[in-house]
Formats: sequence, structure tokens, C-alpha cells
Amino acid sequence: MGQVDTDIDKAVVLHPAILLEFPLTMNTEYCADQRPMNWVGDWAGRRRCLTPDRTALVDPESGLQLTYRELDDRARRWATWMVDSLGLGQGDVVALLSRNRLEAIEIFMAAGKTGIVIAPVSHRLSPTEADDILSRLQPALLLSESALGDYIEGLGKAVAILLRLEFGTADSPVEQALARVTPRPVNHALALADTCLLIHTGGSTGLPKICRISHRQMVWNAVELLVAAPEGLAGRRELVLFPLFHVGGWNTVLPILYAGGCAVVPSAFDPASVLQTIDIHRINHLGAVEAMLRVIAEDPAFPEASLASLEAITTAGAPCAETSMAPFLARGIIIRQSYGLTEAGPSNFINARAMDDPTSAVTERASVGTSFFHCDYRIVDPVDGSPVAIGDSGELQLRSPHDFDGYLDDPERSRARWTDDGWIRSGDLAREDSEGRVFIVGRIDNVIVSGGENIAAEEVERLLGEHPAIKGVMVFGVPDERWGERPVAWVTGPAHDALPEIREWLDDRLARFKHPATLQIVEALPVTGAGKPDRRRAREEHIEATWREGS
Amino acid sequence: MGQVDTDIDKAVVLHPAILLEFPLTMNTEYCADQRPMNWVGDWAGRRRCLTPDRTALVDPESGLQLTYRELDDRARRWATWMVDSLGLGQGDVVALLSRNRLEAIEIFMAAGKTGIVIAPVSHRLSPTEADDILSRLQPALLLSESALGDYIEGLGKAVAILLRLEFGTADSPVEQALARVTPRPVNHALALADTCLLIHTGGSTGLPKICRISHRQMVWNAVELLVAAPEGLAGRRELVLFPLFHVGGWNTVLPILYAGGCAVVPSAFDPASVLQTIDIHRINHLGAVEAMLRVIAEDPAFPEASLASLEAITTAGAPCAETSMAPFLARGIIIRQSYGLTEAGPSNFINARAMDDPTSAVTERASVGTSFFHCDYRIVDPVDGSPVAIGDSGELQLRSPHDFDGYLDDPERSRARWTDDGWIRSGDLAREDSEGRVFIVGRIDNVIVSGGENIAAEEVERLLGEHPAIKGVMVFGVPDERWGERPVAWVTGPAHDALPEIREWLDDRLARFKHPATLQIVEALPVTGAGKPDRRRAREEHIEATWREGS
Repeated sequence: MGQVDTDIDKAVVLHPAILLEFPLTMNTEYCADQRPMNWVGDWAGRRRCLTPDRTALVDPESGLQLTYRELDDRARRWATWMVDSLGLGQGDVVALLSRNRLEAIEIFMAAGKTGIVIAPVSHRLSPTEADDILSRLQPALLLSESALGDYIEGLGKAVAILLRLEFGTADSPVEQALARVTPRPVNHALALADTCLLIHTGGSTGLPKICRISHRQMVWNAVELLVAAPEGLAGRRELVLFPLFHVGGWNTVLPILYAGGCAVVPSAFDPASVLQTIDIHRINHLGAVEAMLRVIAEDPAFPEASLASLEAITTAGAPCAETSMAPFLARGIIIRQSYGLTEAGPSNFINARAMDDPTSAVTERASVGTSFFHCDYRIVDPVDGSPVAIGDSGELQLRSPHDFDGYLDDPERSRARWTDDGWIRSGDLAREDSEGRVFIVGRIDNVIVSGGENIAAEEVERLLGEHPAIKGVMVFGVPDERWGERPVAWVTGPAHDALPEIREWLDDRLARFKHPATLQIVEALPVTGAGKPDRRRAREEHIEATWREGS
Repeated sequence: MGQVDTDIDKAVVLHPAILLEFPLTMNTEYCADQRPMNWVGDWAGRRRCLTPDRTALVDPESGLQLTYRELDDRARRWATWMVDSLGLGQGDVVALLSRNRLEAIEIFMAAGKTGIVIAPVSHRLSPTEADDILSRLQPALLLSESALGDYIEGLGKAVAILLRLEFGTADSPVEQALARVTPRPVNHALALADTCLLIHTGGSTGLPKICRISHRQMVWNAVELLVAAPEGLAGRRELVLFPLFHVGGWNTVLPILYAGGCAVVPSAFDPASVLQTIDIHRINHLGAVEAMLRVIAEDPAFPEASLASLEAITTAGAPCAETSMAPFLARGIIIRQSYGLTEAGPSNFINARAMDDPTSAVTERASVGTSFFHCDYRIVDPVDGSPVAIGDSGELQLRSPHDFDGYLDDPERSRARWTDDGWIRSGDLAREDSEGRVFIVGRIDNVIVSGGENIAAEEVERLLGEHPAIKGVMVFGVPDERWGERPVAWVTGPAHDALPEIREWLDDRLARFKHPATLQIVEALPVTGAGKPDRRRAREEHIEATWREGS
């Protein structure tokens, strides 16, 4: 079958003689990460042995619940079918187009028994993007949820030539095939270095990248969360809101299954259902991005909803504003900000002190805390790579056992992701205070270097956004003869005569050199095709307009 | 300084170019285990960042308590002193002669910051054995507890030529030196593959072996215990009774410190003090060998002692008899049997189901449960290596990320420890029942092969030991023309005319082929110099006597 990644095979072909030599010579050819072991990938099988009768997964929409024994039964069935009926094996890629469904997790567990690599593809991609991703993945098979039929019909030629099978209803072709299988405990020893997931990321500018995620990466991600959970994860009843086509979705579900807890997995995000599910399924933890918290808190049912079971929320994706956290903090729920990259985690940072000291959730709310136990970090000057002083901003760089294995078939971008001395560049600007708390300031790409000082566009934007007259704001740098660059702010909302008052308001709040050289009112702020702020376009338009005015 | 193990250096000299190549080629030269990272070894530093104010260690005798910040301060002081004043560095071996003291743990944490390798030496060794171990370790330094001065005076020439420094009192030479140091956060990036401990084992027959234990081994051991603890380990208040010159001592303390819990560390085992300490320090867990449980339960204070805080006991070392567990089970304390080898863990097996189902602690009390999450096992015929059927006994073999790195300077015995396909031979005979529960039956060395069947001497001994007339028993095999071997039992206690009744009693309880061909009453059973049963001597004496009778 279509083998996208021949390296995977290489990694497990370790001659026993090499294994045998290792204790005697500790030669670099021996590598514990490349040693096949039965448990790697077979988390369903391990949990069946350890905690067969605990509830592993819940579908809150259908009410279906799976114990660990049942999850392993299903994973055995999927694995037997894929191996015996489809002829798939280690290194074969199976693309997955699905919302968050229990089947997706069963398929992942089945893949772990066989060495099959799962490549989840987002159903939020444009048809062109999805077609591009699928043609690069060269999957042996596309498993798709029947509910996404319309989306798939809209895709292009890459999907047309694929072997595609639908699941998601009792009479779907896959379920009929699964029903005919006599499941056996298919299990193939895998190495930690073997690939388990291919996850696409980015793409707001340029071609989306496909990250190679090893079993090692996902095991260590799970270990990080476990070490960071003082109360353990076996008692967790986790509501999974992150999609399983992002690494964050897998890194919500997998640590729970690793530890024997319970994951409750709705197929889509809906604020009213979230509030009901928390109550019905006694959810004690969930992860969310800021936008989710906002709509949950704005839901009419929020004030009356019982959130008694909900102990803590972990936010991810971007720094979360105080106003978004306030409704939950007011209900006595701990909020921990976290930070992670697909390429380096995503278990990289979490504000863990919030667990010992709930007040720190408030006082440290703008911080992502410190790195997880096994995650090294450094903050360096983006230009010369030297460490910056405490309090100064620089690029956050990461190093841990959960680093990714590079971008699929893209040596150039893979190489650019690592520094020469082996650290992963986050592309994010961060600073650390004297207490060791780390704050994410912005993107390196958005840094404005003015008179030798680094200004994060996002920092100026956040501040301006707090002014009552300003509705939208975008900050970018423009060339300046004297200072190299100077910041410019485009804003929507205020009347022209409000600008002097806004400047005065800034005086108390922002270092002088960070003040926008120009503060300009615009009708609307430009966005990219993906709906993200398009600072590049604003910059170009601004420079062109200035040049015309000057000429 | 005396560098005992040049492999350690080799393991960390990874050129950045290799690191950079890895994501592109996944070549076998790249190995995540051999990549230096700051957190490896620096557990004190990591915990200082994560949970600075929690209590890490308690000395119940002096009342001294150290928070994680204070533990890290002490570790920095020790590390600064060893590096700056003594010139020690990565790969240097420091021998440690100490009872269980907080300083021993501080020294281990300091070593983790610097790459120094700690070699704990038992003060229960005979002078000849200790001298042999010390001369093989070639330590750069011997750190010894002042209370062991008399023991050390009795040692031979190996210790005489060593640089030796005493700690353990406020005015000891080491404490005076430490007081003069200006501690700095000495931290050296180490690889998981780097050695952290050299632990001597065995020696009841032949030369003691010295196991090379890597950071990888101890990290994965800790991960095993954490994954197996549904309630997490951060809330643990662990009473440490295993000595720190065995790997089991370190594997009791280190997982607690890894997770942010609290370890209470008396310098020696005393049953009355154990009962007091449980009460005073609200101990909720302890590990013990069977002999310890017996004397604790026999202590006059036991019936009145408050054991309210004590939730569970983990036993190790050997299968624990029901009578030894009964007094604790009667007090509502969960007992989990565990099993582990220095060479392969020691986090190998635990009866984890006991946590979900306390009654299983009783019904499954003779079982060590199943293997830890990341520990592969198999049970194979000791002769031909083929898997045995469910219910049959065979050699237990292990494979996991916490395998050891071989015996120091002993390629022959290292080689013999692994099978050709990379599994560690436990040397123990085990069987698995249809529920997946594993039982340790005896030592391979004590197996009697009779008519093609394997008979564990220990199994026959345990059964005979239950007969009321039998005080002591020893079973061994002797050559037999027809059956290859046949079992012989030497017993103490019964009168000669009780033998027919004993044979009849056996009929209901033991498969016919396991019955002793000869049941012989002796005055006393032979023991080795180390006080262990000497089946080999009994066998020789028996064969010689039989030959004389026959001639």
C-alpha cells in the first residue's frame, strides 16, 4: 500500500545484535528510542490489562460509553480489519476526515497496534487546501465520517482517486465490514521513534506544513501533563473541545487514556451543550481557546448553569484576556494558561502554580507560567541568538523529548525550524520576569525593531484595544531613516478629534519608544483569506500611501 | 579525577550537526536518548520552579524538613562545592557510604546537576566485599556518614587510599566546607543515556555485580509509578524504609520528588518508630519487604497505633505470605505486591487492580498483578525459549525503557543477562493465569526438571512449610536415571513416624510428579555465608550420602 514515509521502516529494523551490543559498548548505534516494544502504541491494550472496567470514552450526544475493555475490543476490530481485509501495515498512512467522534479515537488506538500512521485532515480547510494536503500525504486509505459527505463531495481530484470508506452510522460501509471481522489482539512492537501522526499546521501564509509526530512525542506530552497534575489524571472527567485534526485535540484525549481517566467527546463545539454536558457528565476539567470561553460565558444558560463539578480550565492557543477569564474565576474555577507548539509539544508551558495557589490564577493570569518538567526553554535575541536579560523580550526556543520529527518531505523548512545547536525556534516573542514567569508577547514576524529596541506589535495592539473608543486595532512597522523602523497603528472606531486624547491616554501606559509614530483611523482592518489580521497588507498599503503623499 | 566509565563522555558528545540532521533523515545516528537536556538530572531545579514551597523531604528523627526550594539550595551548594572546590565533573564517580539520610538525597540531586555518578555502597557488606566494590568503582571521592566511622575503620586497603570526607553532623568536615561555598545554579545538560547510579547487587554466590543505571532508567521508573498511581504522587506522604544502597530505595524517593510529593526518610528501620512516624507525619503510603511487615505487626504498639492516614502498602523483594499481610488488611490498608529487578526496573510489576478493587488485594494476594504500563514481559521455557502455555511456569523475561545499561566492566555477565533478541532474563520462574495475573514461582536456578516437567523447588517448599509438623524445609533436585531429575525434600521438625501422614497430606495438594522422591528429616538446613538457604550444599551432601549407601 502507499508508503509515504520509508524512514519509518528503517527506524524499527534494529538487528538483535545491536541490541545486544549496547550494554557493552554504549555505542551510538544503539538507541532506546528506536527499540521496538509491545506497549508503544498499544495504549488500549495496556489499559485493558490495568483498568479494564473504568469508563474511557463518552459520546455525550448518543450517550454511548466505552470502558477500556470495550475501547480495546473496538481497536482490535479496526486493527484486524485494516490489516487482514485491507492489507495495511506499518508505515501506511490513513487519512482521517472526521469531527471529534469516538471512532476517530478507536482508529488511532488501532493504528497504534499496527504501526499505521494517522493523518487527520481538517474539514475546515478550503477544497484547494484539503486537496493539496491529501495529495502530499499519499494515504493508502481515506476514512471519512458520513456526516461530512457534502464537504468531501466538494473536494478535488486528490480525493477522487483515493480508496475512501465511510463510518459514523450503524449501517455505514465500514461498520458493516467491522461487524464481519473476527477481532484478534493484533499487536506489533513499535519504537518510540516511529511516526504515529501526520498533522497539518499553519498555512495562513504559504503552503500548510505537515508535522511528523512520533510515538515518543505523544508519550512525553502525556507524561508532561501527568507530572503537572498533582491530583493525577485517572480521576479526570475531561470535556474535549479541541478538534482532533490539531495536535491539541490528541493531547487532550491521549493523556487521559494514558492515565486511565475519562474523556467526554462531543462532535462539535456548542456553548449551550457544553454547559449541559458539564452538568450531566460531571466534567471536572476542560481545555478551551479564548473565543470558546467568551461564547460559553455569553450563553443565556451560563448564569444558571451548574458548574459545581468543574474544577479547572486550561486555556491554549493564545494569551487569554482577563475579561474572558473573569466569569469563570468568579464561579471559583481555576484557570491555567498554557502554551505549546505542534512542533515542540504541545505540552510546553503551563501556569501550574495556579493549582497550589488559586489566587495566582488571577495575579499571574497573563503568564503561561513556566515550562513543563521535561521542557527546556531559552529566550534569545532574535537577531544574534544571545540570551536576553530578565524582563526583555526575545524569541522563545524549546528543547525536549517531545520535539517533532520535522515537516513531511520538506527538508528546507525542517532545517529552518531548528537552530544550529538543536533548539526549536517557536517564532514567538516572550519575556520572563524575576519570578521565573514567562509571558508570550507576540510573533517574531510582527516585531518592530526601532532604535535597537524590540516592539511587539501585539503588545501595542492589546493596550490600544483597551481604550473605550477603539473597536479594532492593527499595529505594524514602517521604515524610518533615523530609527530603522517605527510603529504605526491603524484603528477603527474613534472620531478624528479623539486622537489627541488617545495619545495622552497612552502616555501613562506605554514606554515612549513604543508609541505609534502614526495613529490612523481606517474604515476596516485588512484580513487574510483565513480571516486572520493581515498586517503585511496594511503595511504595504500604508507605505504606498505615504510615498504618494510625499511625492 | 578518577574516571571510571569513559562511555559516559561518549554518550553526550553529539555534534549539533547530527541533531540537525535527524528530522530530515531519521538516521539511526540521531538518538533522542543521547541528546543533552537541562532538565535531565536537575529534578531539584525543576521542582524549585514548579512547586518551590511544598515540603520535599522530612527527617523524622531530627525533625528537619526541606521544601523543594531548600532542597535545591542544598543541591546547588553540594554541586558548587564538588565542582569548584573538588574539581569533579561529568562521569566522575562518588562513592556514598551512608544510611538513609537527607544528605544522601541532596548529593544525588547535586550529582544530577553536574553529571557526577553516585555509587552507593552498602554498610552491610563484609569488609572484604566493600573493599572489592570500592576498588572496582575507582571513585574520585568517598562521601561517608560520620555515624558509620567504625564500619569504615574496619575496611581494607581500597578505602585507605581514597579521598574520603565525612558528613552528617553540623561540624563535620563536609558541612564546614559547604558553609564556605557561595552556591550557584550549577547545571550541566545531561542525556537520558548518561549514567546516574552504580548499584551493586547479588553476591550470595560469586562476585557482586555493579549495575550501570542511566537517568533514562530512573525517569522511566518514576513515570511507571506515576501512571500506576490513580491519585497521583503529589499528595503522597511516603515513608521510605528501603535502603538507598539498593535501587528500590532510590525508586521509592525519586518518583515522589519527581511528582512534587513528600518523602519521610528515617535513617534506619525500627518497628516502633515506624508506627510513631506514620502517626506524626500522616504517612499515607510505604513500601516494605515481608520481614518488615512481620515485625511491625508484632510490635507491642501495633494494636493501639493509629494507622488512620495509611492508605496502602507496596511489598517488594519476594512474594509476601498471607499471614504477613493479614494484620494490615484487617486495619483496612490496601496491600499491593510488586516485583522488580535492578537490571530491568525495578518498576516491573505491581498488583494495581488492588486500588480499584480492594478485595482483589485479598483474592489476588499471591500475585504481582501485571506489568507496569511501559514494561513488556514474556514467560518462556527456560530451555528452548519458546512461550509457555497459560498456567505453565517459565522464565519471566522483561523489556522496557527502564532496562539497565549492563554490569560495570563485566561484558561477559552483561551479555548473559540479555537474550539474543534483546530481552532481559529475570532468572525468575513465573506463571500467568487466565485473568492475566502473574505469579512469581521461584528461581530458575532452583528448577527441577523431572520427566520434562518443570518443578519449582520454592513451590514444594511453600506447601510443605504449611504442614503443622514441619518447621524448616529445603527442596532440591537429584539426578535420576528414568526422570532426569527428581525432587528431594529435607525437613526439620517432624518425628520419623509422621512421614507417611505428610505424604498422604501432600496427595490432595500437589501434582503427583512434584512429590519428593525422598522426604528426609535432618537436624538443620544448610545456609550460605549470607544466611540464605544453601540448596546446592544440601544437594551435594545428599548425592554423596546416597552414593555411599549404594556403594
